[in-house]
Amino acid sequence: MRNLLVRISFIGTRYGGFQVQENAPTVCGELNRALLAILKHPAEIKGVSRTDAGVHARDFAFSFRTNNPIPEEGLVRALTALLPADMGVHSCTEVPEDFHARYSCTGKEYAYRFFPSKERDPFLEPFVYRYGGALDVAAMDAAAAHFVGTHDFSAFRAAGSSTQGSVRTVFRAGVTWEGGLVVFRVAGNGFLYNMVRIMAGTLLEIGAGRRTADSIDAALKQGRRTLAGPTAPAKGLCLEQCFYEKKGG
Amino acid sequence: MRNLLVRISFIGTRYGGFQVQENAPTVCGELNRALLAILKHPAEIKGVSRTDAGVHARDFAFSFRTNNPIPEEGLVRALTALLPADMGVHSCTEVPEDFHARYSCTGKEYAYRFFPSKERDPFLEPFVYRYGGALDVAAMDAAAAHFVGTHDFSAFRAAGSSTQGSVRTVFRAGVTWEGGLVVFRVAGNGFLYNMVRIMAGTLLEIGAGRRTADSIDAALKQGRRTLAGPTAPAKGLCLEQCFYEKKGG
Repeated sequence: MRNLLVRISFIGTRYGGFQVQENAPTVCGELNRALLAILKHPAEIKGVSRTDAGVHARDFAFSFRTNNPIPEEGLVRALTALLPADMGVHSCTEVPEDFHARYSCTGKEYAYRFFPSKERDPFLEPFVYRYGGALDVAAMDAAAAHFVGTHDFSAFRAAGSSTQGSVRTVFRAGVTWEGGLVVFRVAGNGFLYNMVRIMAGTLLEIGAGRRTADSIDAALKQGRRTLAGPTAPAKGLCLEQCFYEKKGG
Repeated sequence: MRNLLVRISFIGTRYGGFQVQENAPTVCGELNRALLAILKHPAEIKGVSRTDAGVHARDFAFSFRTNNPIPEEGLVRALTALLPADMGVHSCTEVPEDFHARYSCTGKEYAYRFFPSKERDPFLEPFVYRYGGALDVAAMDAAAAHFVGTHDFSAFRAAGSSTQGSVRTVFRAGVTWEGGLVVFRVAGNGFLYNMVRIMAGTLLEIGAGRRTADSIDAALKQGRRTLAGPTAPAKGLCLEQCFYEKKGG
Protein backbone atom coordinates (compact mmCIF):
# COMPACT_ATOMS: atom_id res chain seq x y z
CA MET A 1 0.00 0.00 0.00
CA ARG A 2 1.41 3.42 -0.99
CA ASN A 3 0.85 6.45 1.24
CA LEU A 4 0.82 9.68 -0.79
CA LEU A 5 1.09 13.30 0.37
CA VAL A 6 -0.38 15.93 -1.99
CA ARG A 7 0.08 19.72 -1.65
CA ILE A 8 -2.58 21.90 -3.22
CA SER A 9 -3.86 25.48 -3.29
CA PHE A 10 -7.42 26.71 -3.60
CA ILE A 11 -9.57 29.82 -3.61
CA GLY A 12 -12.08 29.18 -0.82
CA THR A 13 -14.80 31.55 -2.05
CA ARG A 14 -17.01 28.88 -3.66
CA TYR A 15 -16.54 26.24 -1.00
CA GLY A 16 -18.24 25.39 2.26
CA GLY A 17 -14.81 24.64 3.70
CA PHE A 18 -12.61 21.57 3.35
CA GLN A 19 -14.74 18.90 5.00
CA VAL A 20 -17.52 17.27 2.95
CA GLN A 21 -21.01 18.51 3.78
CA GLU A 22 -24.44 18.31 2.22
CA ASN A 23 -25.29 21.93 1.50
CA ALA A 24 -22.30 23.27 -0.39
CA PRO A 25 -19.49 22.18 -2.67
CA THR A 26 -16.36 21.41 -0.64
CA VAL A 27 -12.66 21.09 -1.37
CA CYS A 28 -12.67 17.48 -0.15
CA GLY A 29 -15.70 16.74 -2.31
CA GLU A 30 -13.82 17.91 -5.41
CA LEU A 31 -10.78 15.82 -4.40
CA ASN A 32 -12.95 12.72 -3.80
CA ARG A 33 -14.49 13.05 -7.25
CA ALA A 34 -11.15 13.57 -9.03
CA LEU A 35 -9.30 10.82 -7.13
CA LEU A 36 -12.09 8.30 -7.75
CA ALA A 37 -11.75 8.94 -11.50
CA ILE A 38 -7.96 8.56 -11.37
CA LEU A 39 -7.53 5.70 -8.89
CA LYS A 40 -10.75 3.79 -9.72
CA HIS A 41 -11.39 3.39 -5.99
CA PRO A 42 -12.65 5.84 -3.33
CA ALA A 43 -9.77 7.46 -1.42
CA GLU A 44 -9.89 8.10 2.30
CA ILE A 45 -8.56 11.64 2.39
CA LYS A 46 -6.78 12.95 5.51
CA GLY A 47 -6.61 16.75 5.35
CA VAL A 48 -4.09 18.79 7.36
CA SER A 49 -7.01 20.74 8.84
CA ARG A 50 -10.62 21.60 8.36
CA THR A 51 -10.77 25.06 6.89
CA ASP A 52 -13.82 27.27 7.29
CA ALA A 53 -16.11 28.20 4.44
CA GLY A 54 -14.48 30.97 2.41
CA VAL A 55 -10.94 30.50 3.74
CA HIS A 56 -8.22 30.21 1.07
CA ALA A 57 -5.07 28.08 0.94
CA ARG A 58 -1.78 28.53 -0.87
CA ASP A 59 -0.44 25.32 0.62
CA PHE A 60 -2.93 22.78 1.89
CA ALA A 61 -1.80 19.19 2.45
CA PHE A 62 -3.67 15.90 2.40
CA SER A 63 -2.69 12.25 2.39
CA PHE A 64 -4.36 9.02 1.26
CA ARG A 65 -3.48 5.39 0.62
CA THR A 66 -3.71 3.52 -2.66
CA ASN A 67 -2.47 0.42 -4.47
CA ASN A 68 -2.67 2.26 -7.78
CA PRO A 69 0.85 2.45 -9.32
CA ILE A 70 0.32 5.88 -10.97
CA PRO A 71 3.60 7.88 -10.85
CA GLU A 72 3.63 10.97 -8.58
CA GLU A 73 4.06 13.33 -11.56
CA GLY A 74 1.20 11.63 -13.38
CA LEU A 75 -1.08 12.12 -10.38
CA VAL A 76 -0.25 15.84 -10.26
CA ARG A 77 -1.10 16.18 -13.97
CA ALA A 78 -4.30 14.14 -13.74
CA LEU A 79 -5.53 16.00 -10.64
CA THR A 80 -4.76 19.35 -12.28
CA ALA A 81 -6.80 18.32 -15.30
CA LEU A 82 -9.77 17.02 -13.28
CA LEU A 83 -9.99 19.66 -10.54
CA PRO A 84 -11.79 22.98 -11.13
CA ALA A 85 -9.89 26.17 -12.05
CA ASP A 86 -10.03 27.52 -8.46
CA MET A 87 -7.82 24.64 -7.26
CA GLY A 88 -4.16 23.97 -8.11
CA VAL A 89 -1.82 21.05 -7.42
CA HIS A 90 1.76 21.70 -6.28
CA SER A 91 3.21 18.25 -5.73
CA CYS A 92 2.71 14.62 -4.82
CA THR A 93 5.26 12.61 -2.84
CA GLU A 94 5.30 9.13 -1.37
CA VAL A 95 5.55 9.19 2.43
CA PRO A 96 6.13 6.53 5.13
CA GLU A 97 3.27 4.21 6.00
CA ASP A 98 2.59 5.90 9.37
CA PHE A 99 2.46 9.44 7.90
CA HIS A 100 -0.84 11.30 8.37
CA ALA A 101 -1.35 14.79 6.84
CA ARG A 102 -2.90 16.06 10.07
CA TYR A 103 -1.08 14.22 12.86
CA SER A 104 2.36 14.39 11.21
CA CYS A 105 2.06 18.15 10.66
CA THR A 106 4.51 20.03 12.94
CA GLY A 107 3.13 23.50 12.25
CA LYS A 108 1.23 25.81 9.96
CA GLU A 109 1.53 29.41 8.84
CA TYR A 110 -1.54 31.54 8.22
CA ALA A 111 -1.84 35.04 6.73
CA TYR A 112 -4.71 37.41 7.37
CA ARG A 113 -4.89 40.28 4.85
CA PHE A 114 -6.36 43.70 5.66
CA PHE A 115 -6.91 46.22 2.86
CA PRO A 116 -6.98 49.72 4.37
CA SER A 117 -9.10 51.47 1.74
CA LYS A 118 -12.47 53.09 1.33
CA GLU A 119 -12.36 52.10 -2.35
CA ARG A 120 -13.17 48.52 -3.27
CA ASP A 121 -10.58 46.86 -5.52
CA PRO A 122 -12.41 43.97 -7.20
CA PHE A 123 -9.11 42.15 -7.86
CA LEU A 124 -8.34 42.07 -4.11
CA GLU A 125 -11.88 41.90 -2.73
CA PRO A 126 -12.21 38.09 -2.49
CA PHE A 127 -8.95 37.81 -0.48
CA VAL A 128 -8.99 40.71 1.97
CA TYR A 129 -10.90 42.33 4.79
CA ARG A 130 -11.35 45.91 3.62
CA TYR A 131 -11.27 48.52 6.37
CA GLY A 132 -11.93 52.18 5.56
CA GLY A 133 -10.23 53.75 8.60
CA ALA A 134 -6.60 54.41 9.45
CA LEU A 135 -4.58 51.49 10.89
CA ASP A 136 -1.59 51.84 13.22
CA VAL A 137 0.46 49.00 11.74
CA ALA A 138 3.37 49.40 14.20
CA ALA A 139 0.91 49.00 17.10
CA MET A 140 -0.58 45.90 15.49
CA ASP A 141 2.87 44.39 14.96
CA ALA A 142 3.90 45.06 18.56
CA ALA A 143 0.61 43.57 19.79
CA ALA A 144 0.99 40.45 17.63
CA ALA A 145 4.18 39.63 19.56
CA HIS A 146 1.98 39.04 22.63
CA PHE A 147 0.63 35.89 20.96
CA VAL A 148 4.10 34.32 20.67
CA GLY A 149 4.84 31.47 23.06
CA THR A 150 2.90 28.62 24.64
CA HIS A 151 -0.45 29.79 25.96
CA ASP A 152 -3.96 28.62 26.72
CA PHE A 153 -5.78 30.21 23.78
CA SER A 154 -9.31 29.61 25.13
CA ALA A 155 -10.19 33.28 24.67
CA PHE A 156 -9.24 32.98 20.99
CA ARG A 157 -11.48 30.05 20.19
CA ALA A 158 -15.04 30.12 18.81
CA ALA A 159 -17.48 29.97 21.72
CA GLY A 160 -18.97 26.49 22.08
CA SER A 161 -16.34 24.68 20.03
CA SER A 162 -15.34 21.23 21.25
CA THR A 163 -12.77 20.97 24.03
CA GLN A 164 -9.70 18.93 23.18
CA GLY A 165 -7.12 21.01 24.97
CA SER A 166 -6.62 24.68 24.28
CA VAL A 167 -2.87 25.08 24.83
CA ARG A 168 -0.98 25.87 21.63
CA THR A 169 2.47 27.24 20.78
CA VAL A 170 2.78 30.24 18.48
CA PHE A 171 6.29 30.29 16.94
CA ARG A 172 6.09 33.77 15.45
CA ALA A 173 3.51 36.46 14.76
CA GLY A 174 3.80 39.87 13.11
CA VAL A 175 1.98 42.51 11.12
CA THR A 176 3.65 44.27 8.17
CA TRP A 177 2.84 46.17 5.00
CA GLU A 178 2.98 43.98 1.90
CA GLY A 179 2.34 46.28 -1.06
CA GLY A 180 -0.90 48.10 -0.26
CA LEU A 181 -2.04 45.43 2.20
CA VAL A 182 -1.56 45.09 5.95
CA VAL A 183 -0.78 41.43 6.56
CA PHE A 184 -0.87 39.51 9.84
CA ARG A 185 1.27 36.38 9.60
CA VAL A 186 1.26 33.79 12.34
CA ALA A 187 2.95 30.39 12.58
CA GLY A 188 2.34 27.83 15.29
CA ASN A 189 2.14 24.15 16.10
CA GLY A 190 -1.65 24.17 15.94
CA PHE A 191 -4.66 26.46 15.94
CA LEU A 192 -8.04 26.26 17.68
CA TYR A 193 -11.30 26.76 15.82
CA ASN A 194 -11.42 30.35 14.48
CA MET A 195 -8.23 31.20 16.41
CA VAL A 196 -6.48 33.16 13.65
CA ARG A 197 -9.67 35.03 12.71
CA ILE A 198 -10.22 36.08 16.35
CA MET A 199 -6.55 37.12 16.63
CA ALA A 200 -7.03 39.17 13.43
CA GLY A 201 -10.23 40.78 14.72
CA THR A 202 -8.43 41.68 17.95
CA LEU A 203 -5.45 43.15 16.09
CA LEU A 204 -7.77 45.24 13.92
CA GLU A 205 -9.27 46.80 17.04
CA ILE A 206 -5.76 47.56 18.26
CA GLY A 207 -4.78 49.07 14.89
CA ALA A 208 -7.91 51.20 14.94
CA GLY A 209 -7.03 52.47 18.44
CA ARG A 210 -10.02 50.87 20.14
CA ARG A 211 -7.99 48.42 22.25
CA THR A 212 -4.50 48.09 23.73
CA ALA A 213 -1.97 45.29 23.37
CA ASP A 214 -2.29 44.58 27.12
CA SER A 215 -5.82 43.33 26.50
CA ILE A 216 -4.28 40.34 24.70
CA ASP A 217 -2.40 39.33 27.85
CA ALA A 218 -5.56 39.70 29.92
CA ALA A 219 -7.57 37.61 27.45
CA LEU A 220 -4.87 34.89 27.36
CA LYS A 221 -4.70 34.84 31.16
CA GLN A 222 -8.42 34.78 31.89
CA GLY A 223 -9.41 32.64 28.90
CA ARG A 224 -12.78 34.25 28.32
CA ARG A 225 -13.88 34.66 24.68
CA THR A 226 -15.57 37.97 25.46
CA LEU A 227 -12.19 39.51 26.34
CA ALA A 228 -10.87 39.05 22.79
CA GLY A 229 -11.99 40.93 19.68
CA PRO A 230 -14.57 39.91 17.08
CA THR A 231 -14.01 37.08 14.58
CA ALA A 232 -12.66 38.66 11.37
CA PRO A 233 -14.33 37.56 8.09
CA ALA A 234 -13.21 34.25 6.59
CA LYS A 235 -12.26 35.65 3.17
CA GLY A 236 -9.22 37.55 4.57
CA LEU A 237 -7.66 34.32 5.86
CA CYS A 238 -5.29 32.10 3.92
CA LEU A 239 -3.37 28.96 4.95
CA GLU A 240 0.09 29.81 3.62
CA GLN A 241 2.22 26.82 4.57
CA CYS A 242 2.15 23.44 6.29
CA PHE A 243 5.30 22.20 7.99
CA TYR A 244 6.34 18.55 8.16
CA GLU A 245 9.87 18.93 9.53
CA LYS A 246 11.10 16.29 11.94
CA LYS A 247 11.37 17.60 15.47
CA GLY A 248 14.52 19.66 15.86
CA GLY A 249 14.88 19.66 12.04
CA MET B 1 -27.41 69.24 -17.47
CA ARG B 2 -24.29 67.78 -15.81
CA ASN B 3 -21.93 65.53 -17.75
CA LEU B 4 -20.14 63.06 -15.45
CA LEU B 5 -17.09 60.88 -16.10
CA VAL B 6 -16.74 57.79 -13.92
CA ARG B 7 -13.66 55.53 -13.73
CA ILE B 8 -14.20 51.94 -12.62
CA SER B 9 -12.49 48.55 -12.49
CA PHE B 10 -13.99 45.12 -12.95
CA ILE B 11 -13.17 41.44 -13.14
CA GLY B 12 -14.56 40.38 -16.51
CA THR B 13 -14.93 36.66 -15.76
CA ARG B 14 -18.66 36.74 -15.06
CA TYR B 15 -19.61 39.18 -17.79
CA GLY B 16 -20.50 38.90 -21.46
CA GLY B 17 -18.44 42.05 -22.07
CA PHE B 18 -19.32 45.69 -21.49
CA GLN B 19 -22.21 46.17 -23.92
CA VAL B 20 -25.69 45.08 -22.81
CA GLN B 21 -26.86 41.81 -24.35
CA GLU B 22 -29.62 39.33 -23.72
CA ASN B 23 -27.75 36.16 -22.87
CA ALA B 24 -25.32 37.16 -20.14
CA PRO B 25 -24.84 39.69 -17.36
CA THR B 26 -22.87 42.67 -18.63
CA VAL B 27 -20.87 45.46 -17.03
CA CYS B 28 -23.15 48.08 -18.59
CA GLY B 29 -26.21 46.18 -17.37
CA GLU B 30 -24.91 46.40 -13.78
CA LEU B 31 -24.19 50.13 -14.22
CA ASN B 32 -27.67 50.76 -15.67
CA ARG B 33 -29.28 49.05 -12.71
CA ALA B 34 -27.20 50.91 -10.11
CA LEU B 35 -27.50 54.34 -11.78
CA LEU B 36 -31.28 54.00 -12.16
CA ALA B 37 -31.53 53.39 -8.41
CA ILE B 38 -29.31 56.39 -7.60
CA LEU B 39 -30.47 58.95 -10.20
CA LYS B 40 -34.14 57.85 -10.41
CA HIS B 41 -33.91 58.05 -14.20
CA PRO B 42 -32.30 55.77 -16.81
CA ALA B 43 -28.80 56.93 -17.76
CA GLU B 44 -27.47 56.78 -21.30
CA ILE B 45 -24.04 55.34 -20.65
CA LYS B 46 -21.17 56.04 -23.07
CA GLY B 47 -18.37 53.54 -22.46
CA VAL B 48 -14.77 54.15 -23.52
CA SER B 49 -14.88 50.87 -25.47
CA ARG B 50 -16.72 47.63 -25.81
CA THR B 51 -14.71 44.99 -24.07
CA ASP B 52 -15.00 41.32 -24.97
CA ALA B 53 -16.55 38.73 -22.70
CA GLY B 54 -14.03 37.76 -20.03
CA VAL B 55 -11.73 40.79 -20.48
CA HIS B 56 -10.83 42.65 -17.26
CA ALA B 57 -10.35 46.37 -16.59
CA ARG B 58 -8.33 48.21 -13.95
CA ASP B 59 -9.39 51.56 -15.41
CA PHE B 60 -12.53 51.64 -17.53
CA ALA B 61 -14.22 54.99 -18.18
CA PHE B 62 -17.81 55.89 -18.97
CA SER B 63 -19.79 59.13 -19.10
CA PHE B 64 -23.48 60.02 -18.80
CA ARG B 65 -25.68 63.10 -18.36
CA THR B 66 -27.97 63.85 -15.46
CA ASN B 67 -29.85 66.68 -13.76
CA ASN B 68 -29.48 64.91 -10.42
CA PRO B 69 -27.45 67.12 -8.04
CA ILE B 70 -25.74 64.21 -6.21
CA PRO B 71 -22.14 65.20 -5.28
CA GLU B 72 -19.35 63.36 -7.13
CA GLU B 73 -18.11 61.71 -3.90
CA GLY B 74 -21.64 60.61 -3.04
CA LEU B 75 -22.03 58.97 -6.44
CA VAL B 76 -18.78 57.02 -5.93
CA ARG B 77 -20.03 55.79 -2.54
CA ALA B 78 -23.53 54.91 -3.80
CA LEU B 79 -22.21 53.09 -6.87
CA THR B 80 -19.70 51.16 -4.74
CA ALA B 81 -22.54 50.08 -2.46
CA LEU B 82 -24.90 49.06 -5.29
CA LEU B 83 -22.45 47.38 -7.69
CA PRO B 84 -21.39 43.74 -7.22
CA ALA B 85 -18.11 42.80 -5.51
CA ASP B 86 -16.34 42.17 -8.84
CA MET B 87 -16.65 45.85 -9.75
CA GLY B 88 -14.97 48.86 -8.09
CA VAL B 89 -15.37 52.63 -8.49
CA HIS B 90 -12.28 54.87 -8.62
CA SER B 91 -13.68 58.34 -9.16
CA CYS B 92 -16.40 60.58 -10.56
CA THR B 93 -15.67 64.02 -12.05
CA GLU B 94 -17.77 66.58 -13.83
CA VAL B 95 -16.61 67.15 -17.41
CA PRO B 96 -17.48 69.69 -20.16
CA GLU B 97 -20.77 69.33 -21.98
CA ASP B 98 -19.16 68.03 -25.18
CA PHE B 99 -17.08 65.36 -23.42
CA HIS B 100 -17.76 61.77 -24.51
CA ALA B 101 -15.98 58.83 -22.80
CA ARG B 102 -15.29 57.19 -26.13
CA TYR B 103 -14.70 60.05 -28.56
CA SER B 104 -12.75 62.23 -26.10
CA CYS B 105 -10.38 59.37 -25.25
CA THR B 106 -6.89 60.07 -26.61
CA GLY B 107 -5.45 56.65 -25.93
CA LYS B 108 -5.60 53.42 -23.93
CA GLU B 109 -3.11 51.04 -22.39
CA TYR B 110 -3.74 47.30 -22.32
CA ALA B 111 -1.79 44.53 -20.59
CA TYR B 112 -1.80 40.90 -21.64
CA ARG B 113 -0.49 38.52 -18.97
CA PHE B 114 1.20 35.21 -19.71
CA PHE B 115 1.95 32.76 -16.90
CA PRO B 116 4.79 30.47 -17.99
CA SER B 117 4.01 27.47 -15.80
CA LYS B 118 2.88 23.88 -16.07
CA GLU B 119 1.32 24.23 -12.63
CA ARG B 120 -2.02 26.01 -12.33
CA ASP B 121 -2.09 28.77 -9.71
CA PRO B 122 -5.77 29.27 -8.86
CA PHE B 123 -5.09 32.81 -7.60
CA LEU B 124 -3.70 33.82 -11.02
CA GLU B 125 -5.78 31.56 -13.26
CA PRO B 126 -8.67 34.00 -14.00
CA PHE B 127 -6.25 36.72 -15.12
CA VAL B 128 -3.57 34.97 -17.16
CA TYR B 129 -2.95 32.78 -20.19
CA ARG B 130 -0.97 29.88 -18.79
CA TYR B 131 1.65 28.43 -21.12
CA GLY B 132 3.62 25.33 -20.12
CA GLY B 133 6.62 25.80 -22.42
CA ALA B 134 9.68 28.07 -22.26
CA LEU B 135 9.27 31.67 -23.45
CA ASP B 136 12.05 33.85 -24.90
CA VAL B 137 10.97 37.11 -23.28
CA ALA B 138 13.77 39.17 -24.87
CA ALA B 139 12.63 38.01 -28.33
CA MET B 140 9.01 38.88 -27.48
CA ASP B 141 10.05 42.35 -26.28
CA ALA B 142 12.10 43.01 -29.41
CA ALA B 143 9.21 41.81 -31.58
CA ALA B 144 6.67 44.02 -29.76
CA ALA B 145 8.64 47.08 -30.91
CA HIS B 146 7.57 46.22 -34.48
CA PHE B 147 4.00 47.24 -33.55
CA VAL B 148 5.05 50.77 -32.58
CA GLY B 149 4.09 53.55 -35.00
CA THR B 150 1.18 54.27 -37.33
CA HIS B 151 0.17 51.19 -39.31
CA ASP B 152 -2.74 49.57 -41.05
CA PHE B 153 -3.52 46.85 -38.49
CA SER B 154 -5.92 44.87 -40.74
CA ALA B 155 -3.95 41.66 -40.13
CA PHE B 156 -4.49 42.15 -36.37
CA ARG B 157 -8.26 42.48 -36.48
CA ALA B 158 -10.84 39.71 -36.05
CA ALA B 159 -11.80 38.39 -39.49
CA GLY B 160 -15.18 39.73 -40.58
CA SER B 161 -15.29 42.67 -38.15
CA SER B 162 -16.82 45.86 -39.47
CA THR B 163 -14.63 48.20 -41.50
CA GLN B 164 -14.32 51.71 -40.14
CA GLY B 165 -10.71 52.34 -40.98
CA SER B 166 -7.91 50.10 -39.80
CA VAL B 167 -5.05 52.57 -39.34
CA ARG B 168 -4.07 53.05 -35.72
CA THR B 169 -1.05 54.49 -33.88
CA VAL B 170 0.72 52.41 -31.25
CA PHE B 171 2.64 54.72 -28.88
CA ARG B 172 4.63 52.01 -27.14
CA ALA B 173 4.72 48.23 -26.81
CA GLY B 174 6.93 45.94 -24.76
CA VAL B 175 7.15 42.59 -23.01
CA THR B 176 8.76 42.24 -19.57
CA TRP B 177 8.79 40.01 -16.52
CA GLU B 178 6.53 41.30 -13.73
CA GLY B 179 7.02 38.94 -10.81
CA GLY B 180 6.41 35.44 -12.18
CA LEU B 181 4.38 36.72 -15.14
CA VAL B 182 5.40 37.71 -18.65
CA VAL B 183 3.44 40.86 -19.45
CA PHE B 184 2.83 42.46 -22.84
CA ARG B 185 1.91 46.14 -22.42
CA VAL B 186 0.74 48.21 -25.34
CA ALA B 187 -0.56 51.79 -25.52
CA GLY B 188 -2.10 53.42 -28.56
CA ASN B 189 -4.68 55.88 -29.80
CA GLY B 190 -7.16 53.13 -30.60
CA PHE B 191 -7.47 49.39 -31.09
CA LEU B 192 -9.37 47.29 -33.62
CA TYR B 193 -11.60 44.42 -32.59
CA ASN B 194 -9.43 41.69 -30.97
CA MET B 195 -6.27 43.63 -31.92
CA VAL B 196 -4.42 43.21 -28.60
CA ARG B 197 -5.38 39.54 -28.30
CA ILE B 198 -4.07 38.83 -31.81
CA MET B 199 -0.87 40.77 -31.04
CA ALA B 200 -0.52 38.67 -27.87
CA GLY B 201 -1.12 35.42 -29.73
CA THR B 202 1.51 36.43 -32.29
CA LEU B 203 4.04 37.35 -29.58
CA LEU B 204 3.47 34.02 -27.84
CA GLU B 205 4.42 32.19 -31.04
CA ILE B 206 7.55 34.33 -31.25
CA GLY B 207 8.41 33.64 -27.60
CA ALA B 208 7.92 29.92 -28.21
CA GLY B 209 10.29 30.06 -31.18
CA ARG B 210 7.64 29.17 -33.77
CA ARG B 211 7.71 32.55 -35.56
CA THR B 212 10.13 35.46 -36.15
CA ALA B 213 9.65 39.17 -35.48
CA ASP B 214 9.89 39.81 -39.25
CA SER B 215 6.55 38.07 -39.68
CA ILE B 216 4.95 41.05 -37.88
CA ASP B 217 6.24 43.43 -40.56
CA ALA B 218 4.97 41.12 -43.32
CA ALA B 219 1.55 40.87 -41.67
CA LEU B 220 1.32 44.65 -41.21
CA LYS B 221 2.36 45.22 -44.84
CA GLN B 222 0.08 42.66 -46.46
CA GLY B 223 -2.85 43.10 -44.08
CA ARG B 224 -4.03 39.51 -44.17
CA ARG B 225 -5.39 38.07 -40.90
CA THR B 226 -3.89 34.65 -41.70
CA LEU B 227 -0.37 36.11 -41.55
CA ALA B 228 -0.74 37.00 -37.84
CA GLY B 229 -0.90 34.57 -34.93
CA PRO B 230 -3.95 33.14 -33.18
CA THR B 231 -6.25 35.22 -30.95
CA ALA B 232 -5.05 34.75 -27.37
CA PRO B 233 -7.76 33.96 -24.75
CA ALA B 234 -9.77 36.90 -23.39
CA LYS B 235 -9.01 36.23 -19.73
CA GLY B 236 -5.34 37.26 -20.06
CA LEU B 237 -6.33 40.74 -21.28
CA CYS B 238 -6.85 43.78 -19.08
CA LEU B 239 -7.59 47.40 -19.92
CA GLU B 240 -5.07 49.16 -17.69
CA GLN B 241 -5.59 52.86 -18.38
CA CYS B 242 -7.64 55.32 -20.43
CA PHE B 243 -6.05 58.65 -21.42
CA TYR B 244 -7.96 61.90 -21.71
CA GLU B 245 -5.06 64.33 -22.09
CA LYS B 246 -5.60 67.29 -24.36
CA LYS B 247 -3.60 66.98 -27.55
CA GLY B 248 0.02 67.92 -26.93
CA GLY B 249 -0.72 67.76 -23.17
